[in-house]
Amino acid sequence: MMTNAVIHPSASLGYQCEIGHFAVIHEGVVIGDRVVIGDHAVILPGTVIGSDVQIGAQSVIGKVPQTNRRIKRKPTPLPPLTIGSHVTIGACVVLYRGIEIGDGTFLGDHVSIREKVQIGADSVIGRAAVIELNTVIGSRVVVQTGVYVTGDSTIEDDVFIGPRVSMSNDKYMGTRPFTYAGPIIRQGAAIGNNATLLPGIEIGAKAIVGGGAVVTKNVPAGTVVVGNPAAPIPTK
Amino acid sequence: MMTNAVIHPSASLGYQCEIGHFAVIHEGVVIGDRVVIGDHAVILPGTVIGSDVQIGAQSVIGKVPQTNRRIKRKPTPLPPLTIGSHVTIGACVVLYRGIEIGDGTFLGDHVSIREKVQIGADSVIGRAAVIELNTVIGSRVVVQTGVYVTGDSTIEDDVFIGPRVSMSNDKYMGTRPFTYAGPIIRQGAAIGNNATLLPGIEIGAKAIVGGGAVVTKNVPAGTVVVGNPAAPIPTK
Amino acid sequence: MMTNAVIHPSASLGYQCEIGHFAVIHEGVVIGDRVVIGDHAVILPGTVIGSDVQIGAQSVIGKVPQTNRRIKRKPTPLPPLTIGSHVTIGACVVLYRGIEIGDGTFLGDHVSIREKVQIGADSVIGRAAVIELNTVIGSRVVVQTGVYVTGDSTIEDDVFIGPRVSMSNDKYMGTRPFTYAGPIIRQGAAIGNNATLLPGIEIGAKAIVGGGAVVTKNVPAGTVVVGNPAAPIPTK
Repeated sequence: MMTNAVIHPSASLGYQCEIGHFAVIHEGVVIGDRVVIGDHAVILPGTVIGSDVQIGAQSVIGKVPQTNRRIKRKPTPLPPLTIGSHVTIGACVVLYRGIEIGDGTFLGDHVSIREKVQIGADSVIGRAAVIELNTVIGSRVVVQTGVYVTGDSTIEDDVFIGPRVSMSNDKYMGTRPFTYAGPIIRQGAAIGNNATLLPGIEIGAKAIVGGGAVVTKNVPAGTVVVGNPAAPIPTK
Repeated sequence: MMTNAVIHPSASLGYQCEIGHFAVIHEGVVIGDRVVIGDHAVILPGTVIGSDVQIGAQSVIGKVPQTNRRIKRKPTPLPPLTIGSHVTIGACVVLYRGIEIGDGTFLGDHVSIREKVQIGADSVIGRAAVIELNTVIGSRVVVQTGVYVTGDSTIEDDVFIGPRVSMSNDKYMGTRPFTYAGPIIRQGAAIGNNATLLPGIEIGAKAIVGGGAVVTKNVPAGTVVVGNPAAPIPTK
Repeated sequence: MMTNAVIHPSASLGYQCEIGHFAVIHEGVVIGDRVVIGDHAVILPGTVIGSDVQIGAQSVIGKVPQTNRRIKRKPTPLPPLTIGSHVTIGACVVLYRGIEIGDGTFLGDHVSIREKVQIGADSVIGRAAVIELNTVIGSRVVVQTGVYVTGDSTIEDDVFIGPRVSMSNDKYMGTRPFTYAGPIIRQGAAIGNNATLLPGIEIGAKAIVGGGAVVTKNVPAGTVVVGNPAAPIPTK
């Protein structure tokens, strides 16, 4: 079966790439060796993809941020999206320009990541997780299915974020001026399923937040918190 | 790069439109001036799109509701989807017939909106938000990322709904007959990140619901509630 | 309007099928009679589809699991995805190989289902719901919009799971060895909007979990629980 992909003449493909049906590779894209791109995937101008990368069907890779008259933060020119080697990207994923993804990282289906995000090596971003702009995620981090990582967040190495955890970065919810501040989650912390983190919270190293907890204050390193509002329980 | 889009001969396009690769513009679609349609977007029959609109790649615009023998509410004939001017729509979005979207409104990637929904002007519907049928959303409303707006809801002007807020409209969860009733959220109210609203709840004007709160009773205008179940705290 | 679909010569289509624009039907796919496949849908090798099935635009049907060096569970060869008759599948859906879907079941837009999942007849999986691997879902089950069903779960017949319910299956969140255990939800139980179920929980037959509850212990049959942590209230 021949491919019907559209590949811009200025795009550069490495050896032994497989490009799916009706895929679109736009101007100036650079793709390494042995890259597999699914049917209908769209690789937008300037995107840089390492070797041994897989990109699922129907994904949109390297999107320029859109805006309108209501959105406060206006887009600035962004560097290209840069994807390391041995990265796996699912189907129906949307990735913006101005993202860097480290080697060996895995992004599930329906993931959505905004501009100005860095993700380290060997991390996992679960299906349908959404990551907002101006966020740094370390290496060997697990962000499980459906997590919402707000903008202006810091997630250090080896953190585990359970399914459907939610965060926010706007203390006054648009009602007063506020400097956006997402959570800071220190190395090796673990956040349980469907927990809620309020703006600007710091979760200390190796702290544990129980499933369904609502975290309204900083959590010291090594502490376990549960409940609404979250409060410490003795560690075992 | 030539486009390979399929455009039905009965479709009408304004001046200076850009249609992406492999896009499909179906029968009777009417598109204004300076509209940009992304690669692989599908514009279904009869959809009416204003001027200066952007539609992202892989979106499905104007879908007829599907049903099966298990779904209770059967589809009725619906008016076309109508999109105002200066509207921005992200990638991988699914919009049904029978929706009206006001001028200047912004819909993020992976948004999904059912039939019989009206959205005013200059509102923002965040990425991966889902809006059910029979719902009215005002102008200058912010519905953040991943919010679930149940069916039969009313959201007035200037409301702020934080990320991942959830709602429901079926008090007995299918176990007894019940008239579906979503929440009513009055002008200028703000709902925190991952809060839960039970069926038929009214949130008064300028009330504030804290992050992670579970709202089981009406919230009077200007009141701040937090916790599970949500209870008032003094305003500052 | 002629279709521009790509249909592999080894694929088999029944009578009166409608295949959308730029759809891709891969090697060895078997499709029954009167099947409607939307624009840009991708049906991957070996998928078996019954009669009177609808598949929405931009969906990816029969995906082989991807992996990388960080994911613990390695993929094994999987049987084809098998879709019964009278099944309706929305737009932008991702379904893996090794799933069986019973007759009359409905899957909303943006649904995502991993391998090794069985779903009975006449069930509804709501929009943007995510179902993980090794899970069994019965017949006449309602899984509402945005629910997260973790891996290794059992959901019996006639269960109702409200919008945005979340679950987990890893008690120690990757910090210690643990046998994955999702919840067991017994026949006719109902789980409220945005409730959280901890790993390995059993919800008894006809039990009711309130909206926003955080369930940390087993819930006996017929019991109603609410709050964080969830505790029983007298039934009416």
